[in-house]
Amino acid sequence: MNISVLGCGRWGTFLAWYANKVGHNVMLWGRENSRNFIGLKETRSNDYLSLSEDVELTNSLEKAILFAEIIIISISAQELRSFANQLSSLNETQGKTFILCMKGLEANSGKRLSQVFREEVGKNVNLAVWVGPGHVQDFVNNIPNCMVIGSDNIEVTKRIVQELNSDLIRFYYGQDLIGNEIGAAAKNVMGIAAGMLDGLNYSSLKGSLMARGTKEISRLVRAMGGNDVTVYGLSHLGDFEATLFSDHSHNRKFGQALVEGKRFGKLAEGVATVKALDELSKQYDVQLPICNALFEIIFENKNAEETLKDLFLRPVKFEF
Amino acid sequence: MNISVLGCGRWGTFLAWYANKVGHNVMLWGRENSRNFIGLKETRSNDYLSLSEDVELTNSLEKAILFAEIIIISISAQELRSFANQLSSLNETQGKTFILCMKGLEANSGKRLSQVFREEVGKNVNLAVWVGPGHVQDFVNNIPNCMVIGSDNIEVTKRIVQELNSDLIRFYYGQDLIGNEIGAAAKNVMGIAAGMLDGLNYSSLKGSLMARGTKEISRLVRAMGGNDVTVYGLSHLGDFEATLFSDHSHNRKFGQALVEGKRFGKLAEGVATVKALDELSKQYDVQLPICNALFEIIFENKNAEETLKDLFLRPVKFEF
Repeated sequence: MNISVLGCGRWGTFLAWYANKVGHNVMLWGRENSRNFIGLKETRSNDYLSLSEDVELTNSLEKAILFAEIIIISISAQELRSFANQLSSLNETQGKTFILCMKGLEANSGKRLSQVFREEVGKNVNLAVWVGPGHVQDFVNNIPNCMVIGSDNIEVTKRIVQELNSDLIRFYYGQDLIGNEIGAAAKNVMGIAAGMLDGLNYSSLKGSLMARGTKEISRLVRAMGGNDVTVYGLSHLGDFEATLFSDHSHNRKFGQALVEGKRFGKLAEGVATVKALDELSKQYDVQLPICNALFEIIFENKNAEETLKDLFLRPVKFEF
Repeated sequence: MNISVLGCGRWGTFLAWYANKVGHNVMLWGRENSRNFIGLKETRSNDYLSLSEDVELTNSLEKAILFAEIIIISISAQELRSFANQLSSLNETQGKTFILCMKGLEANSGKRLSQVFREEVGKNVNLAVWVGPGHVQDFVNNIPNCMVIGSDNIEVTKRIVQELNSDLIRFYYGQDLIGNEIGAAAKNVMGIAAGMLDGLNYSSLKGSLMARGTKEISRLVRAMGGNDVTVYGLSHLGDFEATLFSDHSHNRKFGQALVEGKRFGKLAEGVATVKALDELSKQYDVQLPICNALFEIIFENKNAEETLKDLFLRPVKFEF
């Protein structure tokens, strides 16, 4: 099958590598002037992997769309709306299958990425998300993981899984798009919180963070019309090892750097998600104490140690 | 208040230290010929902490029972039945409050420790459990955590929490004794599994382990008449940081040593729990795939790598 991957960052480039590895014809799109794209053009490799000669590089979005039946998107979540609008204007998307392989929410609206994409591209496409745990650094060293493909249409989900499943990535069928998208985005927020706890020498409270974090996101998902157990699956809890405990996690490292007063250069998508969850908390009238504490620390300059101690060591009460 | 702690291992000695620290009169009981007790008698300290002179050491069980209103028990779970029988024969237990501060199940019967205790001591005592995350090594370095006191009687729970709560340990009220006890015991089994994955260089699968492990224990708790969300609280999921990721965890280290073919000298209570859960799986007709895999590896000499790969990388399916 012909598959295009749009976006050539760490994750997008891995997706092209992976789709090629499992036997597909792959085209990888990047912006002409992006550093990642220029590097791949020159060396066909980045810090993590080398691409087979079979993977075609392009900076023509039209060419990438025309080429493929399945199109995987991996760009910054906050850029998805304008990017989807650009895709739509090509008038070539009809009947194609798009997979959003990103973990985020639109910061200002709190909208899920599949909502954003549908609003811009319309209903005449198949749309799925690809979420769950896994680091590029592990996969390229042949360390397997389990991930999730979810959509509103189980036939679409099954077809994608059939094309992409392998011994390296074992896919499960997601059955709750709301829960999968909110859970996948929110785990980055828990990753930032975990990093803060690590930086404050309160790593032991990451147990409480896991128990209480899953609970508040579960409540939100339920209020939004999703299934309250979804967050306990791969898309959220199942991604905690990779996010709350891994040295590879940008979000965890961002949180740690923040409380240590250091600069952290790389993207921590969870920061925008903190904003989005604050918005959703208001829209659905659901209290999200951990997300709210992070909002106050990141955007309102509250003291991290005091805020987190107050949160985790507050007066005695019932657990549920 | 007068509090006795029965058992002077790492955890029992810490409990005496803690009860003293929060302002109680404390007596610590140990067997006369136990190495731990002899060491404490000689130096009033162990590898982790030093006891205040106020803490009275005794090897008279009768004296320890007569002394206290609240009696905390911290011994090996598999010895609880004979120990409780011994307590009962003293005829001094009536009206006292006992707290079981242990994480296990009776291996051969699958019974919860509160069941075992009640069978031997009877109904004329108050009985609670104290579970949740926390390592002695962290507490003595003033690193706080959140834990759970649970019982069948909320008034008993509240009174215990009032006496023991502090800035170092923040207690929550447990409302589901079945869920709290099964969850607390079963987290040690997940700890062994995590150690095996670490030893096999599959640490990345600890995400899947968390998602699927909680799910199978939740199903069991529900079948036993408990609340299926309890395992997502502090007693199980909330104890994963301390058990699946910590260098202090005996169960995790036991699992790792086992797959690496090394000897591990210390007690891994989870081994007996694997047996108990196998028994409960049959009694309640609930499939427990992870527990079952560990049973096969530990007791039937199945190959760990093949068994765990088969478990986590099995054919595609729905998550829930």
